[in-house]
Amino acid sequence: MPSSKSEKQLSTIKEKLVAIMGQENVDDTMSGRLAYSYDATPNFQALPDFVVSPRTAEEVAAVLKLCSDTSTPLYTRGSGTNLCADTCPIKGGVVLLMKHLDKILELDKENLTITVQPGTITKTITDRVEQEGLFYPPDPSSMKISTIGGNLGENSGGLRGLKYGVTKDYVMALQIALPNGELIRTGGKLTKDVAGYDLTHLFVGSEGTLGVITEATLKLIPKPESQKTILALYQDIEAAGRSVSSIIAHKMIPVTLEFLDQDTLKAVEDFAHIGLPTDVKAILLIVQDGPKEIVDRDIHRMAELCREEHAVDVRLAASDAEAEELATARRSALSALARLKPTTILEDATVPRSEIATMVRAIAEVAKKYKVRISTFGHAGDGNLHPTCLTDARDKEEMERVEAAFAEIFEKAIELGGTLTGEHGVGVTKAPYLEWKLGHAGIEVMKGIKQSIDPNGIMNPGKVFSEQSKQRMVMMK
Amino acid sequence: MPSSKSEKQLSTIKEKLVAIMGQENVDDTMSGRLAYSYDATPNFQALPDFVVSPRTAEEVAAVLKLCSDTSTPLYTRGSGTNLCADTCPIKGGVVLLMKHLDKILELDKENLTITVQPGTITKTITDRVEQEGLFYPPDPSSMKISTIGGNLGENSGGLRGLKYGVTKDYVMALQIALPNGELIRTGGKLTKDVAGYDLTHLFVGSEGTLGVITEATLKLIPKPESQKTILALYQDIEAAGRSVSSIIAHKMIPVTLEFLDQDTLKAVEDFAHIGLPTDVKAILLIVQDGPKEIVDRDIHRMAELCREEHAVDVRLAASDAEAEELATARRSALSALARLKPTTILEDATVPRSEIATMVRAIAEVAKKYKVRISTFGHAGDGNLHPTCLTDARDKEEMERVEAAFAEIFEKAIELGGTLTGEHGVGVTKAPYLEWKLGHAGIEVMKGIKQSIDPNGIMNPGKVFSEQSKQRMVMMK
Repeated sequence: MPSSKSEKQLSTIKEKLVAIMGQENVDDTMSGRLAYSYDATPNFQALPDFVVSPRTAEEVAAVLKLCSDTSTPLYTRGSGTNLCADTCPIKGGVVLLMKHLDKILELDKENLTITVQPGTITKTITDRVEQEGLFYPPDPSSMKISTIGGNLGENSGGLRGLKYGVTKDYVMALQIALPNGELIRTGGKLTKDVAGYDLTHLFVGSEGTLGVITEATLKLIPKPESQKTILALYQDIEAAGRSVSSIIAHKMIPVTLEFLDQDTLKAVEDFAHIGLPTDVKAILLIVQDGPKEIVDRDIHRMAELCREEHAVDVRLAASDAEAEELATARRSALSALARLKPTTILEDATVPRSEIATMVRAIAEVAKKYKVRISTFGHAGDGNLHPTCLTDARDKEEMERVEAAFAEIFEKAIELGGTLTGEHGVGVTKAPYLEWKLGHAGIEVMKGIKQSIDPNGIMNPGKVFSEQSKQRMVMMK
Repeated sequence: MPSSKSEKQLSTIKEKLVAIMGQENVDDTMSGRLAYSYDATPNFQALPDFVVSPRTAEEVAAVLKLCSDTSTPLYTRGSGTNLCADTCPIKGGVVLLMKHLDKILELDKENLTITVQPGTITKTITDRVEQEGLFYPPDPSSMKISTIGGNLGENSGGLRGLKYGVTKDYVMALQIALPNGELIRTGGKLTKDVAGYDLTHLFVGSEGTLGVITEATLKLIPKPESQKTILALYQDIEAAGRSVSSIIAHKMIPVTLEFLDQDTLKAVEDFAHIGLPTDVKAILLIVQDGPKEIVDRDIHRMAELCREEHAVDVRLAASDAEAEELATARRSALSALARLKPTTILEDATVPRSEIATMVRAIAEVAKKYKVRISTFGHAGDGNLHPTCLTDARDKEEMERVEAAFAEIFEKAIELGGTLTGEHGVGVTKAPYLEWKLGHAGIEVMKGIKQSIDPNGIMNPGKVFSEQSKQRMVMMK
C-alpha cells in the first residue's frame, strides 16, 4: 500500500529527492519498489513509493527533513533480515537504503574502538577486528548478511550474550540524523561520560522510529586466547534446564549455552549432516573462552555438572573446526526448520534463566493445547528461547490457533518475569502485545519521547506502537 | 531561596504532604531545612520549604504528583555526596529523602541479581554480595556513605571502570515514580530485552530530572578469584601516560589503572601515612583480578611494560592488606587535598585514554597560565582525570581565574574527543558548558524528552539544562 499522496505530491517529493542525491539514487520503478516491499518476516508486504540510497550523513538528514516536512513515511533498511517486519514499508512512502554507507572509517588500536557506517556487514567488522587480535562479541545468527545499522536498530543479540552482552553493550558513540534535519553526535571513545541523558542507548534498539544512525563507534575487547565446546545430551528436558542453573550457580559464565530440542536437532541434522545426535530429547551446546588453563578448568567442571544432572552423554568437540561446525549448525536452526513447512514463525519470548525449564514445559503444553507444531531452540543461558512454529499461512484456521498459542506463550513469559522479545524487536508483530510487558504508563512515556523527537510521526510508522493493544486472556497479578 | 509560594499555598501543600506520609515524615523546621540546604559541592546552598521522607514507592509517586500538580520544585536526595550540586534545592520546594527506602529486597543467586531500594548504602550492597562469592563492581570513592539511588541518578563510576564499566552497566530493571504519579517498571532479570525503548538507561544518569527510582535490580558477576596490585613510579609524567597506552595496546585490561601526580601523592601521604613515595613526579596504581595464574601473568607483563616506558621503580603490594591500603589511600585523595586549602574544586574532564598524557600536560599549562594550584589524579585507564583546584572561595579574584582555568580545561577535553564530566554529573556546575559537548541540537533532543516526561518542570529544576550557555573562548573545528 503506497502512501495516499496524489500524483502531484509524489512528483514534487521525487524532484526534491533527486535534488538531494541524484537521479541514480532515487528509484520509483515497480521492480525496485517490489524488491523492497518485504523483509525476512513472513506474511508482510507493502509497496513503498520510492527507494532511495543516500551517500552521506548529510543526504540522510536532508531526506529525513523532507519526509518530516511533507509527512511522508520513512523506512530505514539495511539487509532486511529482521523477524518482526521492522523494515516492511507498511504505510508506503520512502525506503531509505544504507547500501552506500558501508565503510569502516577507523580502527583505533589504542582506544580499542572501531568506527563504521551503518551499511557495513556485521561479519566484515568481526573479521576485520579479529585480524588485529581484537574482538567484537555480538554475533546475531544473521551476521553474514545483516548490517551493523540493522543490529543497532534492533539491539541484536546472538549466541554470546550470556557472557558478553548484546549490541548495545558495545556502542560508545553515534552520529544520528534526526527528523528535523539535524545531525547530532552522542557519546565518545569514553568508558565514562555522564554529560546529559544517555541518547546512545535510547537510539540503539529504537527500531528506526526516532532517527537514523549514520555512524557508530563500537567498543572492542582483546580476542580471547582460546575456546572449547562441549555437547551435553539429555533424555529429559528438565535435566537440561537444571544443568543451566547449576553451571551459573557454580559461578561460571560460559560464552554460549544453547538449547536445542529433538525436533530442532532432527531438522538441523537433516540440513547440515554433521552427526548431531537425533535420538535424544534435547542437547546443550556449551562454549567457554578465555586463557587456555581457565577454559580447560571450566569446561571440565561444566561437563561434570551436566553429568550430575543426568546428561546421558557429554562430548568434547575434538577440534576448533568441529566446534565451528557445531556453532554453524546451531546458527542454521531457523533455515533448517524453515524447509519443513511453507511458513515458519519464530518468536523469542525470554525469561529469567532460572525459569528456562518451566518455560520449555509451558511451550510444549501450549503447542499440545492448540494442536500446533512448535520446535524450541535458543539461548538457554540468557533465558532467550526461540519457539518456532511450523505452519502454513494459507490455512486460516490453523493460523488462528498459531496466533492464540503465541499469545499464551507471551503471557506465560511475562508471568515468569520475562519479556515478549529478547532480541528480535517489537516491529509490527509484537506491537499489539507490548502493553502486557510495559503497562499503559510505560508505553505513554515511550510515545511521549517519540512525539518529542519525531512530531510528524514519519519514522518507521506502524511499528513498536500499535493502534490497538491485544486483550490479555487472563488477568495477571 | 525557598520557593516563591505564599504562606497559604505552602500550608495547603504541607497538609497534603502530611496526608501522604504522616506528620513525622514531613519536616518544615528551620533546622531540618538547613540540614538539607547543601550537599558535598562547595559554594552552593539554598533552603527548601519541606524535607519529606516517604516510606513506600506509592508515597513517592504521590509526592511527585502533588508537586507536579502544584508546580513545586522537587529534589530527590540520598546521602548528598555528589560534586555537581545535584542535590542542592536551588529553587526551594521539596527535598525528597530516601532514608526509609533502604532495604535489600532480594538476592537471587540463580539469576545473579540483587534487588534493592534506592536508599541502600552502596557498600552495604557490595559487602552483602561478596559474602555469597558474588561481585557488584561499581565502586565510587564515596561508596561507604553514598546510596545506590544516588549512584543510579549520577551513573557513578569508580576505580574499576576500565575493566568492569560503570553503574549503568549493572542495572537490569527499575521501578520508577513519574511526575504524573504513575509507577512504571522497566527491564527485568533479562540479559536480552528489546521490548520498546531502553528507559532503564535513560533514567540512569538522568540526575533526578525525569523521575524517582524507587527500586533497582542490579546485575552481579562471580567474584574474581584473586587480585594483585602494583605501583609504578615515574619521574616523567609522559612516561606514565605512555605506560597506560602500552598496557592496553598489549591487550591487557586491568581492573584499575590510577594516576596520581606528585602534589596529590604528598597530600595523600600526609593524610594516610602509608609510605607512599613523594619524591617522584607521578605514580600509576595498577590492579588486576581474575584466576590466580592469569593475574600473575598479567601483573608480571604490566610491570615489564612500565619499566620499558622508564618507570623508575615498580613495586608489588606484598599482601592483600597492603593492596587494600593503597586503594583506600587513592580513594582518600579528595579528602586529603581538601585539608590543604579552604576550598577544593574537583572536576572530571575525561578524554579517550590515548590522550591522557596530552591532557595532563594541558592541565599543567592551564594552571600555570592562570596562576592557580591544580593537582591531578584520576582513572588514567579510562581517561577520566580529576584535576583538583585548591583555592579559597572568599578570594573573588582568584575564583574568577579558577573558573577561567576550568573552562579552558573543559574546552581542551572536548577538543581531544572527550567530555565535560566522566562520572560526577552535570548538575549546576557543568550545565553552562553542556552545549560545548552536545551541540544545540543535542540539547534540544534532551529538553524535548524532559518536557514529555516532566511537563511542569518540577524534577530537580535548575540542573543539567542551563538558562544560559557559556560562550566558548575559541571556536573548535
